[in-house]
Amino acid sequence: MPGHFTFYTRQLEGNLAFFDEQEARHAITALRYTAGQAIHFTDGFGNRYTGNIEKISKNGFTAAVVSVQSDENLPELQLAVGLLKHADRLEWMVEKCTELGVKKLWLMQTTNAIKNRINEERLQRIAVSALKQSHGCRLPHIRLISFNEVLNQPAESRLICHCQSGDELLSASSADLKGDCLVLIGPEGDFTAQEIERAHAAGFRNLSLGSAVLRTETAAMAVAAAYVVHH
Amino acid sequence: MPGHFTFYTRQLEGNLAFFDEQEARHAITALRYTAGQAIHFTDGFGNRYTGNIEKISKNGFTAAVVSVQSDENLPELQLAVGLLKHADRLEWMVEKCTELGVKKLWLMQTTNAIKNRINEERLQRIAVSALKQSHGCRLPHIRLISFNEVLNQPAESRLICHCQSGDELLSASSADLKGDCLVLIGPEGDFTAQEIERAHAAGFRNLSLGSAVLRTETAAMAVAAAYVVHH
Repeated sequence: MPGHFTFYTRQLEGNLAFFDEQEARHAITALRYTAGQAIHFTDGFGNRYTGNIEKISKNGFTAAVVSVQSDENLPELQLAVGLLKHADRLEWMVEKCTELGVKKLWLMQTTNAIKNRINEERLQRIAVSALKQSHGCRLPHIRLISFNEVLNQPAESRLICHCQSGDELLSASSADLKGDCLVLIGPEGDFTAQEIERAHAAGFRNLSLGSAVLRTETAAMAVAAAYVVHH
Repeated sequence: MPGHFTFYTRQLEGNLAFFDEQEARHAITALRYTAGQAIHFTDGFGNRYTGNIEKISKNGFTAAVVSVQSDENLPELQLAVGLLKHADRLEWMVEKCTELGVKKLWLMQTTNAIKNRINEERLQRIAVSALKQSHGCRLPHIRLISFNEVLNQPAESRLICHCQSGDELLSASSADLKGDCLVLIGPEGDFTAQEIERAHAAGFRNLSLGSAVLRTETAAMAVAAAYVVHH
């Protein structure tokens, strides 16, 4: 895969892919792709395309799809992570979770993570850049979510990571970190005891990440990495 | 563990621990610990101590050891990572690998990673800060190493991560990511085919990190995380 570039678009119609101004700046202006040239791209939904560039305009360009390949081994991992205060740590987490192919990355509002807005556009841009850089084909779905809402999300394996001493009966093992899996990661300052109780009542089991107290963004990456490597 | 602070020193003599000026600034000046107070600290070799502060001076302070507990479950993971060009990505990797308890973090010079110096003191400071922050007890041993030298390092499980299509016969699985384990991570621009060949000849087997092409520092963290979560 390295040695070529991967572009991104979600605008596909029949046999034709449309690339916006930003992708045109990268492909046409910076890398000097021309009409007739082959191009590799992804829709971020797990598909890798090859195409041929057709029409180039100021606002974008089009390519005719030549072939498409779906990645069957993509992680079905959903992460709900306590919303981080520091933008740089949040953005780094978005980059890493994108590289690792996380399906949904929810930024979760909890008692100890009360920020109520994110710069969705900026996070999206960072994710697209990480997707292209890593030649991936899965763009995570990133959005703000409340703790209550996350408890109602369906998943076969439902896990929670926190720093409080846990009830052994509710322990999951790393073997549960596979398939259709939703993992909650505590914010800076952790979940409250009441939140953990409510998660247990909703069927979430404790997942241990070792004896150290990981930062929120490290825990999120650790779960994504463990899922991918042992997939 | 959260709710208290963890300090760091390697100066232990009999029953007495000596803390340097930097730790004194944190404990005494910033946090206003006083003589007689209990203190938690680690030597970074896997031991967690409690002690009582005794003498405080301008240049540091001492504490009498009250108890010590060794962490028996520390990762025996050695990572040799292609030396990163960008200081911020390198430093982030040091922080994350420290949180995850990596035993040795070697920054490896290869054909495509030819930088020949690192700011060891600064990386050490970042590692100590991550160790304290995460209440860990393992400070990774960080140093520059050549590719040749790394091939001669002993380990029960010897693995290599690269982006070239691999020989199936030389494949390892994530199950090999345990115990006394040495993992080589390719630099930006990857290992050369010749380097991979030499690693195979030295008994290293390929470890796959999934279908995307991970950045060097992401791959390092992914290996450390997968090791810790499945420990």
